[in-house]
Amino acid sequence: MKADLECLPCFLKQAFEAARMATDDEMVQRRVLDEVTKLLPSLSLDKTPPKISRGIHQLVREASGTEDPYRGVKEKYNRIALSLYPELKDKVKASDDPLLFAIRVAIAGNIIDFGIGLDFDIDRDLDRVLGAEFAIFDYGEFKETLTRAKKVLYLADNAGEVVFDRVLIECLDKEVIYAVKESPIINDALTDDAKFCGIDKVVQIISSGVDAPGTVLGLCSQEFLKYYNDADLIISKGQGNFEVLSDEPKPIFFLLIVKCSVVARYLGVKVRDIVLKKRSG
Amino acid sequence: MKADLECLPCFLKQAFEAARMATDDEMVQRRVLDEVTKLLPSLSLDKTPPKISRGIHQLVREASGTEDPYRGVKEKYNRIALSLYPELKDKVKASDDPLLFAIRVAIAGNIIDFGIGLDFDIDRDLDRVLGAEFAIFDYGEFKETLTRAKKVLYLADNAGEVVFDRVLIECLDKEVIYAVKESPIINDALTDDAKFCGIDKVVQIISSGVDAPGTVLGLCSQEFLKYYNDADLIISKGQGNFEVLSDEPKPIFFLLIVKCSVVARYLGVKVRDIVLKKRSG
Repeated sequence: MKADLECLPCFLKQAFEAARMATDDEMVQRRVLDEVTKLLPSLSLDKTPPKISRGIHQLVREASGTEDPYRGVKEKYNRIALSLYPELKDKVKASDDPLLFAIRVAIAGNIIDFGIGLDFDIDRDLDRVLGAEFAIFDYGEFKETLTRAKKVLYLADNAGEVVFDRVLIECLDKEVIYAVKESPIINDALTDDAKFCGIDKVVQIISSGVDAPGTVLGLCSQEFLKYYNDADLIISKGQGNFEVLSDEPKPIFFLLIVKCSVVARYLGVKVRDIVLKKRSG
Repeated sequence: MKADLECLPCFLKQAFEAARMATDDEMVQRRVLDEVTKLLPSLSLDKTPPKISRGIHQLVREASGTEDPYRGVKEKYNRIALSLYPELKDKVKASDDPLLFAIRVAIAGNIIDFGIGLDFDIDRDLDRVLGAEFAIFDYGEFKETLTRAKKVLYLADNAGEVVFDRVLIECLDKEVIYAVKESPIINDALTDDAKFCGIDKVVQIISSGVDAPGTVLGLCSQEFLKYYNDADLIISKGQGNFEVLSDEPKPIFFLLIVKCSVVARYLGVKVRDIVLKKRSG
């Protein structure tokens, strides 16, 4: 899907949040914000939002002189998520439909997001999401595709969220490739985060080669694209991956919490809704 | 209070919302947004937010060629609010403390706000606010000041909200001057809105002379300033009026719903909290 006019103020808000993560110096924050502001009028909205916000976050990192503004929060949420792991596993085990509950868990992990600026509180939101109605629920198709699948590719989203993904992956009973981002972009999971969350104990981790907040295929490594093209089930986490892959002709299932009104309108659902959606068409 | 860096993305968001109200033409919306974007780097944050956003909304009106983008929603919410009037009056009458409940009603009217982009839903939010805990509750001082007050000045905020103000004013048992904005700014109430909501039946309406989303004293008419200086109780509605008057040495009571994190931090409360606050110092 393409970006919307409404994304422009949101990009500036994201730049502000990133600048605040990068430095406490308000002079630097203002300089970063002014640099991003000057970029906005020249932006074409004919691209996906993650492709555009990649450039914006690059500029923030350069203008603030900070390699990884979100490192601290990534570490924090890796730790918090790991501490929840035993409880999540117990809940899956106690569930009537462990696979479905594990899907809920994986989606619930998507609350950990510093990109879009939607407030979150793990304790409050975890229970809400675990008990929420699905706004889109292609569960039947998911089970069917999973049953036949031999090569499952799992596209990670954020640090911390990896633990929740692990709970789902451990339910799939398949060989899974877990793809993370190549280098720092917002709080997206990198290889180190995935390892810290222990997912290397159950699956192989690869990098997509991308430094955008979504798996932009044109930026992916050849190695990743081989897995992508061969996969007979792709599990895509989060809104960023949805934004870049919504129109791709692949067996993709999108697991996400809807975080903004642009995507909500596109999907015909509401902000904060939870979605398990087969790629249409 | 002064503006914050965080206000810059918010100003752009407000400009987008206003552009969308002004026209359906996306080319014009983009042009408006780009004009406002170019203005941002030159903005000094040494002013109050309403003083800055006044200039931004002026630019939106000029660039979109629309005199009053919010006319339609103002008329809509005037009608909706009027339809609620009998029910609100009944609730006040049935209350143990009618004055306090009428204050709640007046604050609840502040949910009708198209400035800051906080979603609202009258049915849902009205009940929430009418039953919410006050985050700041200077009710004792308010009653004391009211008892002694001879000249009450009431600073209106938004169209529709006027009906809720009327419910409070009818409880005060005082002569009240009700001050609205001079010309269109977001969905702020103008004289016509106040009359439509029937407040002219109970009090005298005046214009503050201002076209900012807050009663910026430097822009007020001499007539208004005379009432302002003579008043021994000023009831100030909404966040915009709080932002411009928070430091003024006057007997002001601020009634508002907190709509953004900048004001929430300033007051030491949370977004969506309700506040009855005596001007401190």
